[in-house]
Amino acid sequence: MTSTTPELFDAVDVIHAKRDRARLTDGQIDWVIDAYTRGVVADEQMASLAMAILLNGMDRAEISRWTSAMIASGERMDFSGLSRPTADKHSTGGVGDKITLPLAPLVAACGVAVPQLSGRGLGHTGGTLDKLEAIPGWRAALSNEEMMRQLEDVGAVICQAGSGLAPADRKLYALRDVTGTVEAIPLIASSIMSKKIAEGTDTLVLDVKVGSGAFMKDVEQASELARTMVALGADAGVRTVALLTDMSTPLGLTAGNGLEVRESVEVLAGGGPADVVELTLALAREMLAGAGRTDVDPADALQDGRAMDAWRRMIAAQGGDPDAALPTARETEQVLAPADGVMAELDALAVGVAAWRLGAGRARKEDQVQAGAGVEMHAKPGAVVRAGQPIMTLHTDTPERFERAREALAHAVTILPEGSRAPERPLIIDRVVPD
Amino acid sequence: MTSTTPELFDAVDVIHAKRDRARLTDGQIDWVIDAYTRGVVADEQMASLAMAILLNGMDRAEISRWTSAMIASGERMDFSGLSRPTADKHSTGGVGDKITLPLAPLVAACGVAVPQLSGRGLGHTGGTLDKLEAIPGWRAALSNEEMMRQLEDVGAVICQAGSGLAPADRKLYALRDVTGTVEAIPLIASSIMSKKIAEGTDTLVLDVKVGSGAFMKDVEQASELARTMVALGADAGVRTVALLTDMSTPLGLTAGNGLEVRESVEVLAGGGPADVVELTLALAREMLAGAGRTDVDPADALQDGRAMDAWRRMIAAQGGDPDAALPTARETEQVLAPADGVMAELDALAVGVAAWRLGAGRARKEDQVQAGAGVEMHAKPGAVVRAGQPIMTLHTDTPERFERAREALAHAVTILPEGSRAPERPLIIDRVVPD
Repeated sequence: MTSTTPELFDAVDVIHAKRDRARLTDGQIDWVIDAYTRGVVADEQMASLAMAILLNGMDRAEISRWTSAMIASGERMDFSGLSRPTADKHSTGGVGDKITLPLAPLVAACGVAVPQLSGRGLGHTGGTLDKLEAIPGWRAALSNEEMMRQLEDVGAVICQAGSGLAPADRKLYALRDVTGTVEAIPLIASSIMSKKIAEGTDTLVLDVKVGSGAFMKDVEQASELARTMVALGADAGVRTVALLTDMSTPLGLTAGNGLEVRESVEVLAGGGPADVVELTLALAREMLAGAGRTDVDPADALQDGRAMDAWRRMIAAQGGDPDAALPTARETEQVLAPADGVMAELDALAVGVAAWRLGAGRARKEDQVQAGAGVEMHAKPGAVVRAGQPIMTLHTDTPERFERAREALAHAVTILPEGSRAPERPLIIDRVVPD
Repeated sequence: MTSTTPELFDAVDVIHAKRDRARLTDGQIDWVIDAYTRGVVADEQMASLAMAILLNGMDRAEISRWTSAMIASGERMDFSGLSRPTADKHSTGGVGDKITLPLAPLVAACGVAVPQLSGRGLGHTGGTLDKLEAIPGWRAALSNEEMMRQLEDVGAVICQAGSGLAPADRKLYALRDVTGTVEAIPLIASSIMSKKIAEGTDTLVLDVKVGSGAFMKDVEQASELARTMVALGADAGVRTVALLTDMSTPLGLTAGNGLEVRESVEVLAGGGPADVVELTLALAREMLAGAGRTDVDPADALQDGRAMDAWRRMIAAQGGDPDAALPTARETEQVLAPADGVMAELDALAVGVAAWRLGAGRARKEDQVQAGAGVEMHAKPGAVVRAGQPIMTLHTDTPERFERAREALAHAVTILPEGSRAPERPLIIDRVVPD
C-alpha cells in the first residue's frame, strides 16, 4: 500500500466520479486498473467502484478504455509469424456446451489456425479444460513455445491461458465473483474481450448464450452484451462477429466432462446430435469467413474425416491418447418420464445444476471434478415420451449425490398432452456484426 | 473466513438483493452486520453492499433494523442507576464547533446528567477530545466505573467512547472512509444513532449542520438526515430532537484546539461570541426539556457561575488543571482585509481547512495535533472593515505551514461595498421532532 512515487489519482475520487454518474476519464481508468494490479487500490475500493459501474454504467468509450487498460496490465501474444491466419471462438457459457472440442480441429482442418485459450468451470457450466482432462494423458498447460509449435504443426490448440494475459482481469474477476458485481455488462464485456484481444487472434467469433442455462436470461441483455463486445473487438482491430444462441435447453444429449468428449468425438466422426452439429458448423463458417476462407465448407471436413484427423493430432500433441477409453462413473441411475405426452421443456439450468451436483463441476476453485460424472439425456424438447420411459441417466462416482441431483431436476421437464406442439426455439437467434 | 456452524445467509445474495433494489429482510440485515463484525463477510463484500445502499437507498424500517444490528454488535451502557436523568448532544461536525465544551457543564449545572462520548477530529472539522487535550493534564480515556462516578458526582463527563460500543460501526466507518461510501444518509444516520443509542442516554439532541463547512451542503439533505435520525431515536425509545444550524461561516471567533477552549471558558464566564452563546443555550434548552426540566433557565447558570463551577469540576475530575495557562502557538501571522466595505462571507470550509493545515487537525488517524494551532477571527460576516485591518490571526508551531493556510483562505472572505447589507443567515434554521 506504499509507493515511492506519488500516485496520479486517488481511488476515492475515482469512486466518487462514477458514483455521481460522471464519465471516468482515460487517465482515471488507466490509473485505477494499473494501481489495482499493483495493489495500491485495495480490493474494497475496487469492489465499491465495480458496484458503482454496475448501477451507473459506462459508455462505449469508457468500456473501450477499460478494456485497453486491462490488456496493458499484462503481455500480448503475437501470431503474425504463423503461416496461416488465426480465428478464435468464445462462448459466454452454457450447459452441455462442448462446441469448442469439435470446432477447433474442424476449423484447423479447413486451413485456419485456432489458438483457443480456455478456462475451467465454476458453478453449473462446465469448463473446456475440465472436459479435455477426461482424456487420459492430456495436459492443459503449455508453454508459449509449445503452443506456437502446435499451432504451426497441427493448426489447433486448446490450452490453459497463461497468467501473463490481462492479470488485472484475473484479479478483478475473482473480486467480482464474491462481491455481487458479476452481472455488469461493461465489466463482463471488458473481461472477455481483454483476454481475447491480448491473445492476438485476427478473427473472433462470440457465442452469446441466452436462456435459463446462460448467464444472460433474456435476448435484450444478451444483445446488449453482444453489441458491446463486437464494438470492443472492432475498436481493437479484431474482426469480431457474435451469434446469439439458445440456452433454454442443454446443447446435445450430454452434460459432464467425459460424456461431452464422447459426444464431441461422435460429431467429429460425422454423427452426433443435430443441434451440436448445427452450431459447430455455424461457428466454423463465421471463423472461416473472418479469416477469408469462404471457399471451404466445414461440413465436408466433418464427413470426410479431416476434422477427426486434426482432433487426434491435437489431442496427441498435448500428451493425450485419442484411442484410450474415456473414464466412466461408478454408479448410474435413471430418471423416468412422469407422464405420457410431448416433452415441451428440458430446463438447461436444472440439468446444469444436476450435473454439477453429481460431480461434473466445482463449487470452489480448489475442488476436483469427476471425469465420468454428469447427465445423459435420452429425449429433448419435441420428443414424444411414455410414462416410465428413461429420459435421463445420471452418472456419478459418489451415489450419495443422486438425491441432490434429482432435487435439481424436480421441475426440469415439462410434458404436454399428446398431440401438443413443443414451443419452437431456433438455435441461432441473431447475428451481431460491427456497426 | 471459516466457520464451524453454517452461515444463515450468503453475502453475495444480500448484495444482489440491494443491488436489485429489493428491501433487505431483518434476517439479512442482522446476519450481514454480525458476519461482518466476525470477519465472515469480507471488507470487499461490505464495500460493494455499501455502494449499493448509497445508490439504491434503504427505507425507514431497514435503516432502523440496520441501526439495531450495529448496536447489538457490542455492549450497551445503562445510566438508569443514576439519581438524575441523562441527556446527550451530537453534532454532525463543523468549523469552530466547540459547543460541547460549555454545553455539557451547563446542562449538568441545571440538574441533568450529560454522558458525552466523543471522538477525535479527522479532516477540517476538529474533534472535541483534541480540544480538551489542550488543557494540561486532562485525559480522555475513562473506565466505565470512572465515568459513572463522575456522572454522579459532577453531572457531566466528556470522554473517549470505549471500543465496546457498536464495534460494527467502527469497522464500517473506517471502510466507508476509503471506499467513497461516506455520503449515504442511511449509513450516516445509522452510524451516528447506533453509537448514541448504545450509550443509553434518555434524551438526545442532534445538531445537524448545513453549509460549506458541514458534511451536508444543503438544507434538503440536512433535513433528510435529521428526519431519519429523529425517527431512529424514536424507534429506539430515545427522546430525540434535531436542530438544523448554519455552518456557512465558522461558529464563534476561533477554530483550533486551545483557541476554542479559551473561547468556551469565556462563554462559561458569561461572555463569549453571541452565536456560540445562542447555540449553546438553544441546545441546552432542548436537552433540559427532553429531561423534563423546563423549570430552569440555562442563561441564569451561565451568568451566576454555576456552569463555570461545573466545568472546573468536570475538568479536574479528569486530571486537568482548569487554572493552567493554555498552550499557545510559537508563531502567528495576520490576515488583512483586502478592501474597505462590509464582510459578506467568511467561508467555514476555507477557515476549517486553514486551521487544519496550520496543525489543528490531522490528515491521518495517527497524526498528532498542535494544541496551539488554528485561526482566530477578528471580524465576522456583517462587520464593517477597512483595507489593511487584521481580520484573522493564524497560529502554528511550524511556520512553513502559513503558506498553505493562506492558500486555503484565498477566497474565504467576500467584502461588499460600504453601505451594502451582508446576507442574513439565521443560526438556527429548523427544528425537527418525531412525527
